[in-house]
Amino acid sequence: MNDHPSTEAGRREAPIEVAILLFDGLTALDCLGPYEVLQNVPMIECKFVAEKPGLIRTEGGPLVIEAQHSLEAVRNPGVVLVPGGAGNRQLLKNQTVLDWLREAHRTSRWTTSVCTGSLVLGAAGLLDGLRATGHWMFLEPLHSFGAEPTSQRVVIEAEPRIITAAGVSAGIDMALRLLEILFAREVAEAAQLAIEYDPQPHIDAGSPAKAPAAAVELLRSDFAGYPTEAS
Amino acid sequence: MNDHPSTEAGRREAPIEVAILLFDGLTALDCLGPYEVLQNVPMIECKFVAEKPGLIRTEGGPLVIEAQHSLEAVRNPGVVLVPGGAGNRQLLKNQTVLDWLREAHRTSRWTTSVCTGSLVLGAAGLLDGLRATGHWMFLEPLHSFGAEPTSQRVVIEAEPRIITAAGVSAGIDMALRLLEILFAREVAEAAQLAIEYDPQPHIDAGSPAKAPAAAVELLRSDFAGYPTEAS
Repeated sequence: MNDHPSTEAGRREAPIEVAILLFDGLTALDCLGPYEVLQNVPMIECKFVAEKPGLIRTEGGPLVIEAQHSLEAVRNPGVVLVPGGAGNRQLLKNQTVLDWLREAHRTSRWTTSVCTGSLVLGAAGLLDGLRATGHWMFLEPLHSFGAEPTSQRVVIEAEPRIITAAGVSAGIDMALRLLEILFAREVAEAAQLAIEYDPQPHIDAGSPAKAPAAAVELLRSDFAGYPTEAS
Repeated sequence: MNDHPSTEAGRREAPIEVAILLFDGLTALDCLGPYEVLQNVPMIECKFVAEKPGLIRTEGGPLVIEAQHSLEAVRNPGVVLVPGGAGNRQLLKNQTVLDWLREAHRTSRWTTSVCTGSLVLGAAGLLDGLRATGHWMFLEPLHSFGAEPTSQRVVIEAEPRIITAAGVSAGIDMALRLLEILFAREVAEAAQLAIEYDPQPHIDAGSPAKAPAAAVELLRSDFAGYPTEAS
């Protein structure tokens, strides 16, 4: 829809800038799910930003995506989106990124995270006293940032304008919520229809409460070293 | 999970190669949804292939992803995945790509498409006499390739080993089916849990049957020129 703005609003107003933070070792779908939802909307302009622009290698596979903008070049985005991934262990102590995030949050309409991206918001001090979610395996560490971990798919804290989403695919649900908040329910509906988001997984193991114990254990053992291991 | 194969099978057997076809103007989530599902599995190795390896610009936005392999370099993948997107208008008459696809299908375990990727399978002559799906707006053109359009989220034709998925996000559901077929239900369950695919969209407009008429009309007018327009 980007090439053919269909509404008067799309032609008249400057688009809302969405800064998607990239870093080596991010989980691709954390940000590319929301990206696909948002970039279809003519009133939105997504920008991939990174501390060092260029090619960014995502977690655990060959996918490489390009960050076209430096953090300095996108200082006042309307929306900030922080994905998760094992690579964010570096971000948790990266003052340049955390400073940018704090600054961007001062003027953003919404500052958002998907999956373990919420730990980065936490490290930036943005979740103190708030309810927040993230990947089901990494909810507990949110306590250390003063947040109250919440097993919800999307948590919206309206006052400090923070939205956190659960693991990976939850970013799609979050982006649909965001479109309704920023524009109107009709915009969210059109975006949902455009990506035919009418989920019908043939199995029902998408949360630890529903999945067989064996699946939960498999993942827990795989990720056992995550919080401290060097990537 | 790639770095830590958890099963004996993961250590013993060569991984199944999944060739993901990239081209300028593809819809990113069509292939990156399935990619995120599949690449978590140690017994799978995803490879991004393109007629001309290098940086590939996706449809309608700034996302650029890298194709690391030429078609010639990946001639006998275990699985072929063809995404959709406006850019595939070029593929429909690109004999190099269609030849590669026909060749790859001779030895692949499964040849798959997401969204309008099914039109490319059709153009390669792989859907003749089969039921097939794709993005809801582009089901009719499947007739011209001898296929029977089917409004189903995932269509599995076991005999010629072809799986087609509906629009964009349906690739995630398709990849979960594929994991169960290739390995076991337990593998699909672990993959679903890893990406926390427990969809809870707050609206229910993900198919033309469920969406408000206004959303359907908006998309139809936006894409009106799609099948014939040059990109």
